[in-house]
Amino acid sequence: MAKRVNIGIIGFGNIGSAVASALRKNHAKIMEDSGVDLHIKKVCEVRKIRIPYPATRNPQQIINDPEISVVVETIGGVNPALKFILAALNKGKHVVTPNKEVIAKHMKQIMAAARKNRVQVMFEGAVGGGIPIIQPLRTELAGNQVSEIYGIVNGTTNYVLSKMTEEGIDLGPALKKAQAKGYAEPDPTSDIKGYDASYKAAILASVAFGLDIKWKDVYFEGITNITLEDIEYAREIGYVIKLLAVARRVNGKVDVRVHPTLVGKAHPLASVSENFNAIYVKGKPIGELMFYGPGAGGGPTASAILSDIIQAAKGGKFKALKLRRARMGKIQDISSRYYIRLQAPDRTGVLAGISKAFARKKVSIAAVVQKETVGNVATIVILLHKVSEKNLNAALKIVRRLPVVKKVCNVIRII
Amino acid sequence: MAKRVNIGIIGFGNIGSAVASALRKNHAKIMEDSGVDLHIKKVCEVRKIRIPYPATRNPQQIINDPEISVVVETIGGVNPALKFILAALNKGKHVVTPNKEVIAKHMKQIMAAARKNRVQVMFEGAVGGGIPIIQPLRTELAGNQVSEIYGIVNGTTNYVLSKMTEEGIDLGPALKKAQAKGYAEPDPTSDIKGYDASYKAAILASVAFGLDIKWKDVYFEGITNITLEDIEYAREIGYVIKLLAVARRVNGKVDVRVHPTLVGKAHPLASVSENFNAIYVKGKPIGELMFYGPGAGGGPTASAILSDIIQAAKGGKFKALKLRRARMGKIQDISSRYYIRLQAPDRTGVLAGISKAFARKKVSIAAVVQKETVGNVATIVILLHKVSEKNLNAALKIVRRLPVVKKVCNVIRII
Repeated sequence: MAKRVNIGIIGFGNIGSAVASALRKNHAKIMEDSGVDLHIKKVCEVRKIRIPYPATRNPQQIINDPEISVVVETIGGVNPALKFILAALNKGKHVVTPNKEVIAKHMKQIMAAARKNRVQVMFEGAVGGGIPIIQPLRTELAGNQVSEIYGIVNGTTNYVLSKMTEEGIDLGPALKKAQAKGYAEPDPTSDIKGYDASYKAAILASVAFGLDIKWKDVYFEGITNITLEDIEYAREIGYVIKLLAVARRVNGKVDVRVHPTLVGKAHPLASVSENFNAIYVKGKPIGELMFYGPGAGGGPTASAILSDIIQAAKGGKFKALKLRRARMGKIQDISSRYYIRLQAPDRTGVLAGISKAFARKKVSIAAVVQKETVGNVATIVILLHKVSEKNLNAALKIVRRLPVVKKVCNVIRII
Repeated sequence: MAKRVNIGIIGFGNIGSAVASALRKNHAKIMEDSGVDLHIKKVCEVRKIRIPYPATRNPQQIINDPEISVVVETIGGVNPALKFILAALNKGKHVVTPNKEVIAKHMKQIMAAARKNRVQVMFEGAVGGGIPIIQPLRTELAGNQVSEIYGIVNGTTNYVLSKMTEEGIDLGPALKKAQAKGYAEPDPTSDIKGYDASYKAAILASVAFGLDIKWKDVYFEGITNITLEDIEYAREIGYVIKLLAVARRVNGKVDVRVHPTLVGKAHPLASVSENFNAIYVKGKPIGELMFYGPGAGGGPTASAILSDIIQAAKGGKFKALKLRRARMGKIQDISSRYYIRLQAPDRTGVLAGISKAFARKKVSIAAVVQKETVGNVATIVILLHKVSEKNLNAALKIVRRLPVVKKVCNVIRII
């Protein structure tokens, strides 16, 4: 017989209502396959909208309802979501949330509350929208040591970069297109400055490594410095530019960061375009894996939330993550290959001067692209062999002061 | 405290030993994350090889050992694997196996034995090697109605087709390369004739739809008819040729098949090259997803098996699949777009004759490619709009008899 499970949903916007709609459509299938009879008992929403369930404006009506065993939080942000999540856990309810910001910033506290109350807190929808990645890292990849994750985890910036690449338009118009399609918020700051991806990077690293990654230790850059010129040069040398969330274990330290990255065209991440997301995982013994799918939107996120609800409702032995202390690496300690675009007055001795400056700091040049000069200025693109960011910065300090160099326009990491 | 779980492994070849090796390396990590202390108690292997565990040549020593709670079967094939699997289940042991043939041919019987004995039978490694797909279909996608699956599930044929595409070599030399790399068996029949993929198609369809898909009802073709010419023509019109496992629900019937397929270059499956596998899933509310990774090999398969062992050992509420009766569609009932390559003597009236024959059977031409004639023979490639396979075959019967047509060389479905 199916087990009746009462759900309370706090927040009935795009995602909350998509969960309800998907549950209505797939209720019988879920009951047959998973043996749980999911029932939305109450919805909390402060806006005056039509809600086809018993509704309240007071979240305590859900948190304190002894018949509700799973609370879905879809209001987003830290306040008051954190308060509601902790209160629900402390009332012995499972919590399901796609709220990346609150999970990234307060995972340890939330996990501790879940463990103390022997309930589950699940957040598959917080990273990669509908793409299963949090649960696979914990279960389907449980026999692996994951060493590296590279994720395209922000649909807005991936759409913008894809349009710049495919249509040769600048960031501004590409962003307008994204907004027209509903892929970017009216205020796209959190996406294009990398905040959104940084939350997801912190969550991925925490789950994959079982470590307490503090969000404030995640280095991040957005895509605002990426120009059409960089995209064109990258294409010529066989790369596409993607905003990547990176999580790696290197020499006992953890390296978690978000920045635009040159990705070789043959890499599976390179062909992830439009507003799709993908998470590429390396581990042992698995080798390499990639999970691809819709990174946002009501339907996909509802799929993730429903799966979490079903798992919580079934009441398996899934345990709250134990997060060990992390030894975080600093961004200046990473080693990487780099793309550098700079401008120089067109005269002899430019490359010689730059090469000499790089050589002084043991920075080794892999390739140089120099095109015809426009006006008085030559654009030079330099690809570097692997080098520590510290040495690179020291070298760039010298390069910037060279009389033969007008401007270092952009420095982009390469994987 | 970690729960000690004894494992018996039947078959200590490439995969069995990879499981043992991965477990040795990741034992502490698994214990910490999953709370199970996995211990290989006994290995059954008939060959005289060094085995660093208590070994036996008699599988009953494992099946009858009351201390062993998880039996891993890695001998492959139906006999005697089926006997061992059923015996272990009937002794109340969980069974983990990557054996696609036995699962595809006897899933219903195996599931029934698992349900009767309240144990689990898990086979993540049977499809897609290390790629998590069986468990995601059952858990992470549990809130979805899956409607379509397209999988590149055979690494050998994907490698062969990739080499033909990238290097312009024929099937024979490409297959030799695959054998030299260890990506193809000395006898590659099961792979290139589509048997291997057909087992996986049956399993994917059964799990995704919860239906009793009989393997003998799965239509399959291999890649032996694919020529370099087809690959070149496909490329010119924007497609790559892939061997796909297809599982769809159409009008209450199930359509499960394996055949070479023209895949549009923008489709995520198109860029899956070398011996990688990928499974593309469509469902509601998720939309589209793709899982990409290594489809074979000791390490990847060991990852899948270890994950299954851990889940079985943890003893969650994962239940044996209930398989409802399936209404199978027949291959002649499918509708598809098609690529047709044919040869004609180079004279006027060829296209007119073919078009007329197609029109008589309501087969509508979407595009035609005709190149310069070589010798006396013109090659014509025709792309058809969506049409039922039945109508297409009726039309082709007429076309084949046309005096203006020398030969219909190949007919390939398009997605």
